[in-house]
Amino acid sequence: MGMTIAEKILAAHSGHDHVVPGQLIECATDWVLCHEITTPAALRMLEERGMDRVFDPEKIVAVPDHSVPAMNIKAAKMYQKLKSWVQEKGIRHFYDVGRGGIAHVVLENTGLIKPGQTLVSGDSHTCNAGALGCFATGVGSTDLAGAIYAGKVWFKVPETMLIRVTGEMQPGVTPKDLVLEVIKRIGADGANYLVMEWVGDTIDRMDMEGRFTLTNMAIEAGGKTGIVAVDNTTRAYLAERGVTPDQYTEYTSDPDASYKVVIDLDASKVEPTVAYPHIPSNGRVAGSDRIAVTHAYVGSCTNGRIGDLRDVARILKGRRVADGVQMIVVPATQAIWKQAAQEGLLEIFVDAGASVSYPSCGACLGMHSGVLGPDDVCISSSNRNFVGRMGDPTAQIYLASPATVAASAVAGYISDPREYNAEGGEAAD
Amino acid sequence: MGMTIAEKILAAHSGHDHVVPGQLIECATDWVLCHEITTPAALRMLEERGMDRVFDPEKIVAVPDHSVPAMNIKAAKMYQKLKSWVQEKGIRHFYDVGRGGIAHVVLENTGLIKPGQTLVSGDSHTCNAGALGCFATGVGSTDLAGAIYAGKVWFKVPETMLIRVTGEMQPGVTPKDLVLEVIKRIGADGANYLVMEWVGDTIDRMDMEGRFTLTNMAIEAGGKTGIVAVDNTTRAYLAERGVTPDQYTEYTSDPDASYKVVIDLDASKVEPTVAYPHIPSNGRVAGSDRIAVTHAYVGSCTNGRIGDLRDVARILKGRRVADGVQMIVVPATQAIWKQAAQEGLLEIFVDAGASVSYPSCGACLGMHSGVLGPDDVCISSSNRNFVGRMGDPTAQIYLASPATVAASAVAGYISDPREYNAEGGEAAD
Repeated sequence: MGMTIAEKILAAHSGHDHVVPGQLIECATDWVLCHEITTPAALRMLEERGMDRVFDPEKIVAVPDHSVPAMNIKAAKMYQKLKSWVQEKGIRHFYDVGRGGIAHVVLENTGLIKPGQTLVSGDSHTCNAGALGCFATGVGSTDLAGAIYAGKVWFKVPETMLIRVTGEMQPGVTPKDLVLEVIKRIGADGANYLVMEWVGDTIDRMDMEGRFTLTNMAIEAGGKTGIVAVDNTTRAYLAERGVTPDQYTEYTSDPDASYKVVIDLDASKVEPTVAYPHIPSNGRVAGSDRIAVTHAYVGSCTNGRIGDLRDVARILKGRRVADGVQMIVVPATQAIWKQAAQEGLLEIFVDAGASVSYPSCGACLGMHSGVLGPDDVCISSSNRNFVGRMGDPTAQIYLASPATVAASAVAGYISDPREYNAEGGEAAD
Repeated sequence: MGMTIAEKILAAHSGHDHVVPGQLIECATDWVLCHEITTPAALRMLEERGMDRVFDPEKIVAVPDHSVPAMNIKAAKMYQKLKSWVQEKGIRHFYDVGRGGIAHVVLENTGLIKPGQTLVSGDSHTCNAGALGCFATGVGSTDLAGAIYAGKVWFKVPETMLIRVTGEMQPGVTPKDLVLEVIKRIGADGANYLVMEWVGDTIDRMDMEGRFTLTNMAIEAGGKTGIVAVDNTTRAYLAERGVTPDQYTEYTSDPDASYKVVIDLDASKVEPTVAYPHIPSNGRVAGSDRIAVTHAYVGSCTNGRIGDLRDVARILKGRRVADGVQMIVVPATQAIWKQAAQEGLLEIFVDAGASVSYPSCGACLGMHSGVLGPDDVCISSSNRNFVGRMGDPTAQIYLASPATVAASAVAGYISDPREYNAEGGEAAD
């Protein structure tokens, strides 16, 4: 029987010609991504066992991102721990504060992670990198410790869900809306321990940024990871980062590969979608209800890329964030920050009355730079709206595309971005 | 006997023709500046006593700045308290997150606070506004509550220290160096409960930004406030903000005014000065010792203005922050942030490997966005280097001018900014 992309990658990394779902394998890790929140716990485990080594310092990528620049002394200590470990072990791929940003988005741009490879990290959104045709997944600190020490992790080979997306998305509809629609349909546990493989002409036409948004959200349906096969879009993206085809392996799913489930989605029927509290599967059409917001957040590893910022700028240009709404825009990396500055986007945000933050995970997980208080209502481009995720447990989080966040910030209540023309608004006071 | 500027302002605001130092007066407050840290405590006092009113909502300026965007739920609640009070009382001069910045710097630019007026706030650096020829001072939350309720505070009329600064500052020497030199000379309690009145040809030639830096630091010598008489520089600054001379009163000190002490300073002899831990009076010449730094901080109400950012950009242009150094640049207000973006300064910072923050008090007082961990060493353009001020009590804080911070960030150790030519460096990798 044929194999899926994910199965082929896992076979190649575990010394097997063929693997089948449910099989337990010892999988070699090409890359281990380390940030300052979960890595210190893994390092402590290793130190306590006298196993304080790194399997290969060239295969570790270290990026502090959650709580930097530090918002308290504890966070400063976590950062210090990561930094001193990096220095001690001679880890060269270290993207320090001011040189990096959100780890997943930093990594996708480095040219280090390549199609056909494996990646683990102590972070649930590690699945993000699957858009590059690799097998990338989050692990707990214990598995992370094992990966750091041995360059290996145990996996049960997952089954795969095929998501076939066809048709043209309406103007104002984005990949974030697609993935929120899929999660709405299958449920927040609808892809439990499955690989979510995205195919179809909609995906074929989608840029890499959109694909990262899709694979990033796999975990919000319980998925083990998301994955997109390599095509010319992938190759061009990699070439821009100095990666040539001889440096990577392209896998495709066999025609007779076995899928646990197949989802068909007509992209032309998808509307701007908002996941209502308190679960990402609670999607409704944007603007269905008049819900006043106190906060509008654009950022995170899901939607803090340059295309996202351009979407926001198109709507904010010549308009103002509504009185009483606190809007925060967080470019995902320093490079994206700079690009947005050069394009004049950051000035548009500040003119509109938004705060522009340094790159960081920040308020996405309620760490700093926009933590919500009691009964605050936030429309956010991030990935998760669980109770208390962004701060106080009584706060309400609505997930949406950056365009929907921008439209809602201007209106003061959750709005359909299609109400805004593409050319920007009148100059407002 | 004649009166000083400060005495004349206090006399005019307490219904007296003449006041003398030591006299207790009931002083009318033209302005009360409120931020989210000390105001909630004052409001609680009023509420508990059934005295929940505002003497005049048109005379309150509210600016959340210390812990915004919120770094935790407690901070979010403080912000909510300020915001709901502002809405309830109809306070129009509210500079919300994304529309304001650091309160003192926001206020100095509004055109609201004018020469000859009085200002109180629950913040020790309220003295900042004294550069505009007004009497501005920090008060505790109890006095703040009284001012909010009655528009009045009790003062003991302070004696005045005259600081006469003459001569041309060397290139690379800034007003921050002057004030650190003065505090070094008189001690951190050298101006206890005194008004620090700045005069002399050096002050005459100094722009308003430099004067704000001088008056801002009055509290670091124990001063009740700092003050500079109105001149053409002040008038031009106010005119740019729509304030005409008929809207304010210019006071000058009488020739026979009485000063408790007179300090003479030859500005041409002042060198770039760094206040060593743990007190602002512990000044030495920058670069006297080779002290490695882990953090470099540019920001605060003392030195986060556009001229400060230009000084930093001149040194960082074409250079890189040293490996292992975390540099954070915090424009003091959204307007300064935008100006810096338009001038291309922010790109220079990011190119150099610095993080650019939203406007906030942030790490200056160890609240967020760069809190120091154990044994961290920070060179900072802020105002106070007490034990624990920026985070962990074992961290070391060195105070300096923005130029000295930039030079030190590039070198990796505390350095003399005069070593960098004014034209920017070679393009570095």
